[in-house]
Amino acid sequence: MMLATRLIERKRDGGRIEPGEWHALARAYAAGHVPDYQMAAFLMACYLRGLDRAETASLTEAMLRSGELLDLSHLGVPRVDKHSTGGVGDKVSIILAPLVASVGVAVPMMSGRGLGHTGGTLDKLESIPGFRTDLTLDEARAQIERLGCVLIGQTGEIAPADRKMYALRNATATVESIPLIAASIMSKKLAEGLTGLVLDVKRGSGAFLPELDRGLELARTMIQLGADHGCPTVVLVTAMDRPLGRACGNALEVEEAILGLRGEGPEDLMAVTYALGVEMLLLAGRATTRDEAASILREAIDSGRAAERLKQIIEAQGGNPAVVDDPAVLPQAGECEIYRAPRRGFVARVEPRAVGRGVVAIGGGREKLDDQLDPAAGFVITARPGAWVEAGEPLATVFASNPVGIAAGRAALRTAIVIADEAELPLPLISHRVSAVGVEELAAA
Amino acid sequence: MMLATRLIERKRDGGRIEPGEWHALARAYAAGHVPDYQMAAFLMACYLRGLDRAETASLTEAMLRSGELLDLSHLGVPRVDKHSTGGVGDKVSIILAPLVASVGVAVPMMSGRGLGHTGGTLDKLESIPGFRTDLTLDEARAQIERLGCVLIGQTGEIAPADRKMYALRNATATVESIPLIAASIMSKKLAEGLTGLVLDVKRGSGAFLPELDRGLELARTMIQLGADHGCPTVVLVTAMDRPLGRACGNALEVEEAILGLRGEGPEDLMAVTYALGVEMLLLAGRATTRDEAASILREAIDSGRAAERLKQIIEAQGGNPAVVDDPAVLPQAGECEIYRAPRRGFVARVEPRAVGRGVVAIGGGREKLDDQLDPAAGFVITARPGAWVEAGEPLATVFASNPVGIAAGRAALRTAIVIADEAELPLPLISHRVSAVGVEELAAA
Repeated sequence: MMLATRLIERKRDGGRIEPGEWHALARAYAAGHVPDYQMAAFLMACYLRGLDRAETASLTEAMLRSGELLDLSHLGVPRVDKHSTGGVGDKVSIILAPLVASVGVAVPMMSGRGLGHTGGTLDKLESIPGFRTDLTLDEARAQIERLGCVLIGQTGEIAPADRKMYALRNATATVESIPLIAASIMSKKLAEGLTGLVLDVKRGSGAFLPELDRGLELARTMIQLGADHGCPTVVLVTAMDRPLGRACGNALEVEEAILGLRGEGPEDLMAVTYALGVEMLLLAGRATTRDEAASILREAIDSGRAAERLKQIIEAQGGNPAVVDDPAVLPQAGECEIYRAPRRGFVARVEPRAVGRGVVAIGGGREKLDDQLDPAAGFVITARPGAWVEAGEPLATVFASNPVGIAAGRAALRTAIVIADEAELPLPLISHRVSAVGVEELAAA
Repeated sequence: MMLATRLIERKRDGGRIEPGEWHALARAYAAGHVPDYQMAAFLMACYLRGLDRAETASLTEAMLRSGELLDLSHLGVPRVDKHSTGGVGDKVSIILAPLVASVGVAVPMMSGRGLGHTGGTLDKLESIPGFRTDLTLDEARAQIERLGCVLIGQTGEIAPADRKMYALRNATATVESIPLIAASIMSKKLAEGLTGLVLDVKRGSGAFLPELDRGLELARTMIQLGADHGCPTVVLVTAMDRPLGRACGNALEVEEAILGLRGEGPEDLMAVTYALGVEMLLLAGRATTRDEAASILREAIDSGRAAERLKQIIEAQGGNPAVVDDPAVLPQAGECEIYRAPRRGFVARVEPRAVGRGVVAIGGGREKLDDQLDPAAGFVITARPGAWVEAGEPLATVFASNPVGIAAGRAALRTAIVIADEAELPLPLISHRVSAVGVEELAAA
């Protein structure tokens, strides 16, 4: 295709792509008129040459317009979503979506699958027997009207150019580009017809972009894209130098999320959930102060209304709602083994990448998008960075379907959990808040 | 494929690819185990990050070893080929191959097809009724034993990784990279089992790499690759700021090449042909001085032996040998028209790109590799840069199958042939000779 060749050449030589050209390219690619190999060369040129602010906005708009929009304006309620750049043990969405929906804010949440060391909300949810994440846009609309929330995947109708491009980027080492990441995330989120958006940008060794400055650049880019589309966007920068919470693995994380909705979640997981929820309520206009927002959320949990909302969502999406009261409904691992400290000392680090790769190694994650998952496989890691442990003290539990998996999990934890004579300072859990007015440092590193 | 992803990442970040990795990648790509989209991303990363000398050598070797070699060592004669980086009106190969073969040097010539504004030797040869360019390697070997020459395309057996990669580069704007060009040319040429190689690197507005310094860099890279493989390589840098000779278009160029073999070719065409032929004879050890080599070539033309050899080659490859005595055997255009000077003045320029694109416009060239050609379409341009012309004086003839083609040809010539009040200085026809010992300037620009 001549258009594609011309645009590849121009970007290769460091030139600019004009708004109309982004639209034509996205449309032609979604329709299959531009082959993957041309798009792959183009994406590598974008990765290495970069996109300026206007180009990033045009690409976002082009991908957004390549499909349908989830128009929810007729609901007359605020619509706010949360998105995280991905990490290990991050089951916040499963707590936050029903929680915020239960206090009168619509949460039309479209999530992704896990890939490489990071988990994905869809995979976690699908460990609930019967749960469907592939609602049509019409089904999603109807459920949001009734329950204020869906927990689904990116449907075929939403930003198809992004869907196709994201799969291609995964296979062509063109993922870690700030404009491409920002455009991909924001094209999907803006298609949800939101009145506000909260983003959780991870930093630290387990994050997609480990460096703070790159994370902040991504934050600013996404906030700008949100503002361009009349969708106020707030970013919290949170720590991913250790897993969030204790459970890592699909069914194990659903179980921990349910604990969270009952007010029994681990402290770090709940702190991040509350902080993001507070921003969502402020954006939605459901509260005017942080304290007010936090107490609204707390009341929804304490009263059981948040957990009840998850039960209704699970039922509406074909899953077994009994899971909320009885986690034994979830798939259970055939084998488990306690992992003990090999020596005494401080827990210096719990490396999220090594934990995430361990989950993949024992069958609970995937290397390629079409790999099958074992929903029951994973870890529950109770060791926290900074804690003093004695040799032989339990640090974690490995869950797998067979002894080979257990051995692989044990090996992964040996690398992941570092015991040393000195403690190391972990990153502050929530370090920055970024909005259209600028960056606020909440905790010093 | 994991290997491919890892190599794309490394090259994307400016790292080096090791020899064994180039081999594995070329083999996997030729076998279809690495998809085009991964190779496209990798090639764009190579284009933008570059390859160092060792990487270029490894890539060449890897592509060379991806297929079979044309082993001709048993012949006991020197084997020398000529390759040009491509231009407009360049029919030198059709004269040179039979000419050099007729004086006892084997010329196992594999050529390419035209694409964009440049013509291709295969397309020209196929305008001879019945002529086959798709010999198998066994057929080629037998013909070289008998006639010292074949004029064929890159067979499926030769450097299949290069074949596939070249087609992909064309579609992904990754052609104009010096290491990729050098590796592509040299992998094919080294597979011919040569004892010497002469390269014609074009410079000027119609060349693949218009700038002299880029042309010289390509020359040095290819000379080094030849030396690494024990194949002494010499480069002449020649002018492509105007077409070479008068005829541009497939059958028209065959006719002019036959004139050349009879000693009646245009001066510039014959000067380039002799200069390249002299280098071939010197590399082959058939002569020890330039003068001796030139007189051997002249005698082969004057005696009719060179033309006779072309006749034998055409017959052996299934074509009608009568074409050598009677060019009317070639396809003839349905329409022709004289193009006249629109004003008086100097012929300031004859732009080869505009001429080449004109040939495509009237059906004699192709935009895509599977376009059909009209072999009779083209131009004979008698106007030479620097000449003074009066208004209405004939400058060229347009040949096409119908009046629409004639009109398109006329329009192309109006752009291509620039008449002005001042003459412009054309590039020297043959400006540099480059060999393993260095660059020799033959004529000042």
